[in-house]
Amino acid sequence: MTENSKNRISDEFLRLALVERIFAGRDECCTRKVLCGVGEMDDAALIEISNEECMVITSDFIRGSGFYLFALGYLNYFDVGYYLMTANVSDIAAMGARPCGALSVIRYADSVTDADFCQVMQGIREAADVYDVTVVGGDIGGHSSDVFAATVFGFMKTSQALHRKNAKVGDQVYVTGIVGKPITALLYFKSAKPAGLSLSPEEEGDLLGSWKRPCARIREGVLLSTCELATSCQDISDGLKATILQMSAASGKGFRIYEKNLPISESTKKLASFQGTTAAQIAMSASVDFQLLFTVPPSKAEECNERFAEGGLQCIHIGEVTDQKECVLVSADGRDHSLPGVTWKQQVGDAYLTSIIRGDRE
Amino acid sequence: MTENSKNRISDEFLRLALVERIFAGRDECCTRKVLCGVGEMDDAALIEISNEECMVITSDFIRGSGFYLFALGYLNYFDVGYYLMTANVSDIAAMGARPCGALSVIRYADSVTDADFCQVMQGIREAADVYDVTVVGGDIGGHSSDVFAATVFGFMKTSQALHRKNAKVGDQVYVTGIVGKPITALLYFKSAKPAGLSLSPEEEGDLLGSWKRPCARIREGVLLSTCELATSCQDISDGLKATILQMSAASGKGFRIYEKNLPISESTKKLASFQGTTAAQIAMSASVDFQLLFTVPPSKAEECNERFAEGGLQCIHIGEVTDQKECVLVSADGRDHSLPGVTWKQQVGDAYLTSIIRGDRE
Repeated sequence: MTENSKNRISDEFLRLALVERIFAGRDECCTRKVLCGVGEMDDAALIEISNEECMVITSDFIRGSGFYLFALGYLNYFDVGYYLMTANVSDIAAMGARPCGALSVIRYADSVTDADFCQVMQGIREAADVYDVTVVGGDIGGHSSDVFAATVFGFMKTSQALHRKNAKVGDQVYVTGIVGKPITALLYFKSAKPAGLSLSPEEEGDLLGSWKRPCARIREGVLLSTCELATSCQDISDGLKATILQMSAASGKGFRIYEKNLPISESTKKLASFQGTTAAQIAMSASVDFQLLFTVPPSKAEECNERFAEGGLQCIHIGEVTDQKECVLVSADGRDHSLPGVTWKQQVGDAYLTSIIRGDRE
Repeated sequence: MTENSKNRISDEFLRLALVERIFAGRDECCTRKVLCGVGEMDDAALIEISNEECMVITSDFIRGSGFYLFALGYLNYFDVGYYLMTANVSDIAAMGARPCGALSVIRYADSVTDADFCQVMQGIREAADVYDVTVVGGDIGGHSSDVFAATVFGFMKTSQALHRKNAKVGDQVYVTGIVGKPITALLYFKSAKPAGLSLSPEEEGDLLGSWKRPCARIREGVLLSTCELATSCQDISDGLKATILQMSAASGKGFRIYEKNLPISESTKKLASFQGTTAAQIAMSASVDFQLLFTVPPSKAEECNERFAEGGLQCIHIGEVTDQKECVLVSADGRDHSLPGVTWKQQVGDAYLTSIIRGDRE
């Protein structure tokens, strides 16, 4: 073993694999069963509350004032607070639960004024009201840089919880709405606009809205769980490509996605054309969409469409689950392609993981 | 109103008062009652689970690699992980509950290696095992500086929860063990040792132990709640002086503390002598002790002493609750003094708070 963990700095995926190993081997909290924990790598954890009910809980950190669009002046501290709640609530929604309470950890660099701090908290409060969540506690104080983290919890019937892993061959694949706006906003304001692409004020406002007032899909998630429509579900906070790959890996099934069905905004198409690429390439990349991606058995597809329509909600059919190992995008001409878009890559050496963990014990 | 929140940078106490106002007015989480939330400023929040039971939940951030003793090389990343869990578990213990599950938010600067990261996680795991807590989820990734935050939750009988506010006149005041070691460690290694004070290796190890393997007082807290011995309780994570002042403010009662009863280590006494001050001055300052401070009705004092002794636990009588507004330290000669020690000060202008919050809305 020549690799040396003392000097090596690996990506998040290797470190997630380390976390999984280090935290393995405990599936009880005191006297409570952990129904879904670190090993499952689902959107949120499930803790048994009674025979029928469980708590759903998640913690998420966001860059906030470290977002490019914040640095460029398009986002303010209120937006950061609002976004923080949405990111956390989205994980609860992806399990099919309604969020109930939240705790926030807000730390600030010396330059953060009382007004800035207040804006963060008011953004959190505004989003909490929108999502019907009560902020019950947390932590504030100074730090060498800004920190925006939160925990959100809710409660649900255990049998109705949505997981990543249960997609079945033949299931239909849906998303709850347009994908790709956040990454389009980033690319547009950061490079395409300075380079000459000009979208209308409405289009610009719409793109910024995906960062300023993102929407966690609680109603959609709760509909899927309570009506028992979906076999699997995940939120698209890592981008569509990464989400498909994660659900594919969790289920051991392939996903076949139709390019023409992808719900993509005109802005994304204009940006793609300006940059000489395809809209799918942009829309499937690491765009923090907070939509839900879910799979529905063919026998329930019609009911799913009807119930979403009744609720005034969107569910867009984009493909199906296959018995293949691979995930493919079918282009307009009917040909298969590997999934376009840029996502983080996982390159984990099993022996390396072991050596790091063992190394620390020596 | 000439104050300008756009430029003003206030301390944590003003900001806590802002948080309280911004989050006011919601005492339900969805369909769950918040029994103890942001307004109560207790060690942890309580959420109703059933008629009899509640969830206890807290989120705490620690500086970790930003600790002075880390920078000086006395603490490593494993210690930071261990400390993070202890800080959070201590808040649950202070409510009288047993912790069950945890979520951690660990972000790292570019310089943090795989081995460092692993150490943090292994420290978290080690403490989780010691406290019988399961890590069920969380968040990892890069950031401009290290971030160590966590959430810990547990469950308890609602009627047995310990609060800060219910101290009664005549109650006896206790602590669960020695106070002042962490601040002594800091002052000793940072300045007194370089200036010539020399403690034995055992004493140095004992002082460092208060940072490397701090102990959350779960058994003590659970004993107090399940035997219904205490009228109020808080952990001493802000130091003894601040904790007394907070419990006094919450209850509207005075605390009369006897200097000769304070459990203070020989190291602290040596440091005080070296620095030309009193041991109480050091031990009552902002020392993160993770002991519990609690009040017991006179009728239960004997039972309290017996039960702690049976359990091999310490409870040290240090004073009593009075009908005075002030908190005093009684010196060996019987004279009253204001509480010694350095703590953060709260200077909040009510009109200023209003102006900040209103200002952001304008």
